[in-house]
Order: sequence, then structure tokens, then C-alpha cells
Amino acid sequence: MTDLARRLTAEALGTGLLVATVVGSGIMAQSLTTDIALMLLANTLATAAMLMVLITTLGPISGAHFNPAVSLVFMLRRELAPRDAAVYGGAQILGGIAGTVLAHAMFAVPLLQASTKIRTGGAQWLSEGVAAFGLIVVILAGLRFQRSAVPWLVGLYITAAYWFTASTSFANPAVAIARAFTDTFSGIRPLDLPGFIIAQLVGAVLGLALMGWLLGNKTSPATETSR
Amino acid sequence: MTDLARRLTAEALGTGLLVATVVGSGIMAQSLTTDIALMLLANTLATAAMLMVLITTLGPISGAHFNPAVSLVFMLRRELAPRDAAVYGGAQILGGIAGTVLAHAMFAVPLLQASTKIRTGGAQWLSEGVAAFGLIVVILAGLRFQRSAVPWLVGLYITAAYWFTASTSFANPAVAIARAFTDTFSGIRPLDLPGFIIAQLVGAVLGLALMGWLLGNKTSPATETSR
Amino acid sequence: MTDLARRLTAEALGTGLLVATVVGSGIMAQSLTTDIALMLLANTLATAAMLMVLITTLGPISGAHFNPAVSLVFMLRRELAPRDAAVYGGAQILGGIAGTVLAHAMFAVPLLQASTKIRTGGAQWLSEGVAAFGLIVVILAGLRFQRSAVPWLVGLYITAAYWFTASTSFANPAVAIARAFTDTFSGIRPLDLPGFIIAQLVGAVLGLALMGWLLGNKTSPATETSR
Amino acid sequence: MTDLARRLTAEALGTGLLVATVVGSGIMAQSLTTDIALMLLANTLATAAMLMVLITTLGPISGAHFNPAVSLVFMLRRELAPRDAAVYGGAQILGGIAGTVLAHAMFAVPLLQASTKIRTGGAQWLSEGVAAFGLIVVILAGLRFQRSAVPWLVGLYITAAYWFTASTSFANPAVAIARAFTDTFSGIRPLDLPGFIIAQLVGAVLGLALMGWLLGNKTSPATETSR
Repeated sequence: MTDLARRLTAEALGTGLLVATVVGSGIMAQSLTTDIALMLLANTLATAAMLMVLITTLGPISGAHFNPAVSLVFMLRRELAPRDAAVYGGAQILGGIAGTVLAHAMFAVPLLQASTKIRTGGAQWLSEGVAAFGLIVVILAGLRFQRSAVPWLVGLYITAAYWFTASTSFANPAVAIARAFTDTFSGIRPLDLPGFIIAQLVGAVLGLALMGWLLGNKTSPATETSR
Repeated sequence: MTDLARRLTAEALGTGLLVATVVGSGIMAQSLTTDIALMLLANTLATAAMLMVLITTLGPISGAHFNPAVSLVFMLRRELAPRDAAVYGGAQILGGIAGTVLAHAMFAVPLLQASTKIRTGGAQWLSEGVAAFGLIVVILAGLRFQRSAVPWLVGLYITAAYWFTASTSFANPAVAIARAFTDTFSGIRPLDLPGFIIAQLVGAVLGLALMGWLLGNKTSPATETSR
Repeated sequence: MTDLARRLTAEALGTGLLVATVVGSGIMAQSLTTDIALMLLANTLATAAMLMVLITTLGPISGAHFNPAVSLVFMLRRELAPRDAAVYGGAQILGGIAGTVLAHAMFAVPLLQASTKIRTGGAQWLSEGVAAFGLIVVILAGLRFQRSAVPWLVGLYITAAYWFTASTSFANPAVAIARAFTDTFSGIRPLDLPGFIIAQLVGAVLGLALMGWLLGNKTSPATETSR
Repeated sequence: MTDLARRLTAEALGTGLLVATVVGSGIMAQSLTTDIALMLLANTLATAAMLMVLITTLGPISGAHFNPAVSLVFMLRRELAPRDAAVYGGAQILGGIAGTVLAHAMFAVPLLQASTKIRTGGAQWLSEGVAAFGLIVVILAGLRFQRSAVPWLVGLYITAAYWFTASTSFANPAVAIARAFTDTFSGIRPLDLPGFIIAQLVGAVLGLALMGWLLGNKTSPATETSR
């Protein structure tokens, strides 16, 4: 097992580059067009591409969670010690905030900002719950049936989730916190963080519960071995 | 073999998330731009990405049909019992409608709507027939030559079919029914469902017939084993 | 070896669906937006996705040339008998024209049209030469080093070539002929066909010549076996 | 080992086609739309697709660096002799400039131009440093954990980096030099080259340093062997 210092570095680096991509691509898109769908499209492509890259390259070191909701699920599955899950969460949050600062520095805007973008209400919370539920479904089924495809599956899932949820699918408490520090395209008002984070954690746990049953007994359809 | 309850859950969950993606991404795109090509592009990317994810993750449980026309083809190939095909179809339709409801809930619009979008006439029916024909060709040839690639092939095929058919390629009776319950970008007038569904089933059976001949005798070109 | 009837059917079917995609997605895009870059983007995505699908699914039957310039190269490499290359070319051209007719039928426009889109001159010919040269480089190097990746490589190459050549990279005499029969986004004036076809064949042969030398002696770098 | 003449040809050819794609797709996009985000999107897709193709097809011959910063890193890792690194750099620069000339010829514009596009200042340099840092992180971790995925990882990384850095991520001294010779969408003022190149080399060396530590001891998490 890789030692903890390297694993935490990988979690912080990965979450940082992920957030820098979300925030930076939003700023870039906002500066180049007035069409909001085009902004979201650029945001989507950049985020999905970076996720695929980071999970493939850093996964073998730390597991490439980059997301406290994912670390929570692995803790509940007893695949990550509670103490490790806690420090993973800390590394993810600090790395994420550093990612926002880095994006701001590259675009020459104030390094730390408080977002004024309102994202609240039942429909938004439902969206975040669904987004995190789906993410956990994809990760757990992917690990069970085709481990090597997980990086691509997560990137593709987020591609879809950016568009099919009303919240553009944050699905990640650490990324949500980091995005509260930017008052640009991808920001979220700090006041709205608790609702998002609770919805994400609830969705993730529901995903874990469903997959616990759905994948519970050893499924062995004809297709499995050859996939 | 996975037990039937889990298989039906996978079919309903998969069709539900697929429809939620088609409907939800259409609503999102409509709210962000006035350019219809951009709306369809967002719809295309989200749908294709979700299809790749769902077929990879749920395929080992239920086969990941999510589509009564596909279940029909496997029944005709005697790979699915008629009784199973029937309950698969039921799970797909119910799951699909639930997906429409979920998308509406996430975007805070009335949960069930009747579409007013007219989609009828010979050119539309030809489009649906071609779309379903091509889908079956891709699935059957993919299963024959490179089973592990089927999720990517289906997603890529639908990417193309959204654009090269005049109907944007529903190619799926369960999804068509579910889309009759939304009066947004991706809807279809309930009155127009029969024409679509008949065309889809005819196209699927024609695809099965062609591939029965084309793949019939054991082809063994030099390229096959190494692909 | 698959019998010739099935191989020719695969070549005609594949070229037909490819052309239906090129022509159909062009018509669809033209009807939805006024932004020409967005039209070309839709055209690009649909074409590339369909190419990946068709080469994967029909390649094991016929080799999935769909292109007389590719068949010519394999004939010059003595991997395809001259007589087979000739009938391949015929199947590709007939299949391609059928693809144009099919696209027109789906979009309810006149089935056969004569394009009025001027595509001529040295810069266009250079573009087609470069496009076909690059296509052959990609195919031959792909077959040599990573055969299973060829479908993805060709699709990705065409994605790039749609944009980096001034002609949008036809790179295929059969597809060019078929596109002369549509007076829509993707058409080419019949008068301009000879220049395109000659440039494509010259480019293809130059690609063959270069790769004959570049891949000539058995290269065995450290990276090869593990790729 | 492939002989040096073939390796240098591969480096020059690859860098040339890469630059022709960057420059050509920029010219094409500029001619088709007024939306700058759409131009950058076309530029991104074409570049990423071509990178994936070129690294897969030419990697087994030369390693597919196409980038003096990458050759420098392999030299510092003692995987490339200093003399070879020097001639690699020469081939990359000459091939890159030829790529600009080729793109100009295809679009019938003056073959060599001096860019007037200003790209300078601390934020731009930080962007280039981050872009090259991330590129080296991706390449070294990819080679360590999943060598066959490197072409896809680099293409996806550049997809993200076009958008999350303020400079659109040149990340390559040879490509930067070649882009100084075009006064179109993708150009850079010759005067601004030194700042870009220094930032790229500093970022690359920092990436090497970090990965030297992060990958230093033999990591062997449970996930590694099965990826």
C-alpha cells in the first residue's frame, strides 16, 4: 500500500486539478461567448476529460476519490478506515480550495471570492441527491463488473449529469465548498452549501444501499466473464 | 443467472435514468440557449454518455436492453424466454415513465404532461425504421465480434442517429412512450406513438433478418481473432 | 474467409450508412441553426461516431474499407486481389449513392439532386491529398501497431480532418461521388469530382509509399509489445 | 530500436500534423462562425483527436514526444540520450513550422506570417507552467500505471487544458514556435515566445520532480494489477 502522505497528496492534487478545471473552464467560456448552453458545454467537456485523466493516473495511488461522499461510501463498505476517510476528506477540501485559487490566479482575478450564485430549493436538492446517487451506482457497479472502465464511466456519467440534473451535478461536497469561493460561472453561494452537501450525502448512501442489494449475491450471467 | 427481481430492477433503473437524461438534458438545453442545433447537441452528448455508462454497469445484471424492440429481438433469437421478454417490456415502460417524472421533478415542472410535439408521416416513420434497424445491426454484430465494445458502439451509434435521421432516432418503444409524457424539447404527441412504435419494431426485425444472414455461417476472416 | 457476397454486402451497407450519416446530419444541422461552424461540428460528430461503429462491426466481415482509395492501397500491398478491389469499389459507390437516397427520403427531399456547391482549385486539391495521405498513414500504422484501435483511430482522424483541411476532408472517392447527388450542406458539384478523386488517390499512394519505408524494417522499440 | 532517421521522421511528421491541425482548425473555425467559444471548441476537438491518433500510431516508432519539453524530461530521466534529445528538438521545431506552412497552403493564405497576437504577462506564464506541469504528471503516471492509455490520456488532458488555463495550453515549445508563424486564431506574437517557453520548461521540470517523489517507491495498491 502506498504510504498515507503520498495518498493524501494524490487526493489533494487530483481534487485541486479537478476544481481548477471546473472553475477555470467556466471563466474561459464566460469570456468567449454569450450563449449559456455553450458555456455549459465547454464546462462539461473539460470537466469530464479531466476526471477521466485524474482517475486513471492517480487512482492506483489513492483510489482517486476526490470526493468526501465517495470516501464515506468506501468507509461504510469497510474498505477505508474511518480515520483515513477523515483525512481524505480534509485533503480533498484543502486541495479543492487551492484549485479555485489556482484557476483565479491563471485568469488574473481576485484569488478568493464569495459566490453570489443562488442554488437552493427542493428541485436543486433533489438534483444533487440524484446526481450523487447515480455516481455511486456507477462507481460500485463499475468496480464490480469492469474495474478498468471506471475512469471512463465516471467521466461519461458526469457528462450526462451536467445536463440532466437541474443543478449541473456538483455531486461532491469538497468541490461544492471550493466552488463557493468563486463568483464566476461555476460558483455557489456559501449559504447554499449545507443543502447541497446534505443532499449529496443522502444520495450517496441511497446509492450504496441499492447496490448492496442489486450486487449482493454473486451474479454470474453469461456475459460477465467476457466483459 | 441473476434472479428476475434484480434483472427487472436493472431494466427499470436503466430505462429510467436513460429517459431522465433524454428529457432532463432537453429541458436544460432549452433553458440556456435559443439555438436548436445546440439544444440537440447537448441532448445527444448527454444521452450517448449515459447509454455507455448504463450498458456497461447494468449489462452484466440484466443484459441492459432498456428497449422492448431489443428484448423482442433476443426473444426471436431464443435468447430470452417470451415470458421474460414480456416482463422486461413492462419494467422498461414503467421505468421510463418514472424517468420522465424524475426529470420533471428535478426541473420543478408539472410531473406528468401530454406532449403536443407532432412527429408523424412517412419520412418520420422511415427514420424510426432505419434508426431501429441500425441499432439492431450494431448490437448483433457487436455481440458477435467484440462483446466488450457493445456499450461504446451503442452510445456512438445513437450519437450519429440523433443527427442522421429526421426523427432524432427514438428507436425505442419504451422511451417513446415515456417521452409522450413531457411537453418539452424531447416530447412526442401521444397520438403519434403507434406510428413510431410500429416503425421501430419493423426496423428491428429487418435488422435481425439481415444479420441472421450476414453473420450466419461462421465467418472467420484473418482479422477476426485479433480484433 | 467470408464469402464474397457477404463481403460486398458489408461494403455497400457500411458505405451507405456512412454517406447517409454525412448527408443526413448535414441536412439536420442546416435546418436547426444558422451558425455554419455548429453545422460542421454536428456533421463531424455524427460522421466520426458512425465510422467507429461501422469499422468495428463490419470490419471482421469485409475489412470495412468503405473507400476505393483504401481498397487500392490494400491491392497495391497485395492483400486484396485486383478483381476483388474492383468489385469492392463498385459496391462502395453503389452503396454510397443509396445512402444519399436514403438520407433524402428520411428528410423528405428529392431523392437525387445535383449539387451546386463549388469545391475546386489547388488549395482544395492539396487538402484532399493531405486528408487521404493522413488517412492511409493512420490505417497502416494502426494495423501494424494496434489493430484493435483502428476503428477509433480512423474516427478520431476524421474528426480532426474535418477541421484542419480546407475541404472538410472527403478523403474517399465513393463518398465524394455519392455527395455529388445532394444539393445540401455536404454536397460537391459533379464537375469538381475528378479533381477531388485524383487528389485523394495521389495522397493515398503517397501515404502508402511513406509508410512502406517508415514501417519497413521490423521496428521493435521497448514500447511496442506493451501497447 | 528503430533507427534514428525513422525516429526523427516520425517526430517531424507527428509535430507537423499536430501543428497543421491546431493552425488549420483555427482558420476553419474563424471562417465559419463569429462565436469565439465555438472556435475554441472546434480547435480543441480537432487537436485532441489528432493527438490521440498520432501518439498511438507514431509512438511505437519514436516515442511520440512531438514536444521538446517532453524530450527534456525523458533526457533528465536518462531514458533519452542528450544528443538524441537535441536532434529530437530540432526535428520537432522544423516539423512544426512545416505544419504551419502546410495549413496555410491548404487554406490559400500566405505561407509564413508573423503573428500579432499578444500572449504575455504573469497570468499567461502561470497558465503555461501549469499546463506543462500537468502534461508531464499525466504522461509519467500514465506510463507507470497504464501505458496503453497514454494516447487517450494526453488527448483528454489537452481537451481540458485548452479551457482551464488562460493561455489555452500551448504546453509545447516546438508548437509555440510554429504558431508564431501564423497570424490567425492560434497564433502567438514572436516576441512572446521566450516567456512561454521558459514557463513550459519550468512547469515540465516541476512535474518531473513531483512525480519522482509520488511514484518513487514501488506503489502496489490493490487496484494496480487489475487496472
